Amino acid sequence: MNIEHWRSEIDELDAELLRLLNMRARLALKVGALKKASGLPLCDPERERKVLHQLQEANSGPLDTEAVSRLFRRIIRESRRIEAQLVEPVTSDSIS
Amino acid sequence: MNIEHWRSEIDELDAELLRLLNMRARLALKVGALKKASGLPLCDPERERKVLHQLQEANSGPLDTEAVSRLFRRIIRESRRIEAQLVEPVTSDSIS
Repeated sequence: MNIEHWRSEIDELDAELLRLLNMRARLALKVGALKKASGLPLCDPERERKVLHQLQEANSGPLDTEAVSRLFRRIIRESRRIEAQLVEPVTSDSIS
Repeated sequence: MNIEHWRSEIDELDAELLRLLNMRARLALKVGALKKASGLPLCDPERERKVLHQLQEANSGPLDTEAVSRLFRRIIRESRRIEAQLVEPVTSDSIS
C-alpha cells in the first residue's frame, strides 16, 4: 500500500468525522434550546468534566489521554459556540 | 425530549467520534511509516491545505467554515504528533 492509498482512506474517514461533528452540533443546538427555555446557563463545567472523563476512560489509543482531552475540548468549545448563537443571536449591541 | 435524552445521544456520538479519531491516528501512523521509509518530511502543508479545503467544500453546517477549520487543524495536529513518535519513538508499549 502506498501513501496515496492511506490518504484516500483518511479522506473518507474525515468526511465521516465531519458528518458526525455536524450531527453533534445539531444535538448541541437542541440542548441549548432546552437550557434557554429553562433559564439554565450554557456553560456546565461539571457536565464537561464528566464527558471528558468518560472519553478518557473509554480510550484505547493510539491517541493518548492528553490528545483525547485536547480534541474533545475543541469539539465541546465549538458546540458551545453554536449554542451561544441561539441565546445571543449575533448581538444587536451596535444598532445603527 | 429532555436535556438528559439529548445528552445521552451526544455521549453515544462522542464514543463513535473517539473510535474514528483513533482510527485516523492509526492511518496517520501508516502514512508516517511510509514517509519515514521514503525520507519524506512529516509535515506537508500542501496536503493539509487540500484536506481542509475539501472539508470546507463538503461542509453543510450547522458548523461554519471557521469551526470546521479549527476542528480539523486540531485533528491534523494530533495525527502529526502521533506520526512524530514514529520518528522519535517514546516506546510503542506506552502509547496504547
